[in-house]
Amino acid sequence: MDFASLFRHETDTVNFAAGETIVRHGEVLDVMYVLIEGEAEIKVGEQPLCEIGPGALVGELALIDRTPGNADVVAKSACRLVSINEHRFRFLIQQTPNFALEVMRVIAERLRAMNRRVAG
Amino acid sequence: MDFASLFRHETDTVNFAAGETIVRHGEVLDVMYVLIEGEAEIKVGEQPLCEIGPGALVGELALIDRTPGNADVVAKSACRLVSINEHRFRFLIQQTPNFALEVMRVIAERLRAMNRRVAG
Repeated sequence: MDFASLFRHETDTVNFAAGETIVRHGEVLDVMYVLIEGEAEIKVGEQPLCEIGPGALVGELALIDRTPGNADVVAKSACRLVSINEHRFRFLIQQTPNFALEVMRVIAERLRAMNRRVAG
Repeated sequence: MDFASLFRHETDTVNFAAGETIVRHGEVLDVMYVLIEGEAEIKVGEQPLCEIGPGALVGELALIDRTPGNADVVAKSACRLVSINEHRFRFLIQQTPNFALEVMRVIAERLRAMNRRVAG
């Protein structure tokens, strides 16, 4: 499943210019975002973690466990995102088990990347 | 949802003695485990990451993205676990959306712990 394709027909999107912060650490969001156009950078403290592009999820952790995120997400180019609130998130999980599995894959991949970093 | 309660009636369980390795990094498992009795330690390389107890998931990343795990899980006491293959895992996600959300919460929490460690 490709999130960018899944949400490509959305017209209700939010836009950020290059350099703008999409999500700030410590902020409690009640939505997650799917990046459908543009590139952004995830940073923990001053450390750049990785770059993300179309199809990437932003803020999904906060929606899953209702605690504030500990990373900043900053637009590197003009970004267009779809926002998904908790109601819709639950609906997608119930109606589309592959959506649930794909969200798990995304978080799993981030966890593996952090594990590799700690293991050196 | 408490995984230890959800699987408490399982009779088909696997057992490990204290000191035994339940999952070895690099190993490709075709099941994940739910720890229903005992305590175990997760290690990345020689670094102990955390201890887990009843209700914890083991090896869920490998089942989600089909790549080998990069952590060792070692029994600290006698451990009893339920093994869940991919077919059952998908069935649980489809039939029990809260199971999917709880799996996401578990991975999210591990990711947050790693992010905190890297952020220092």
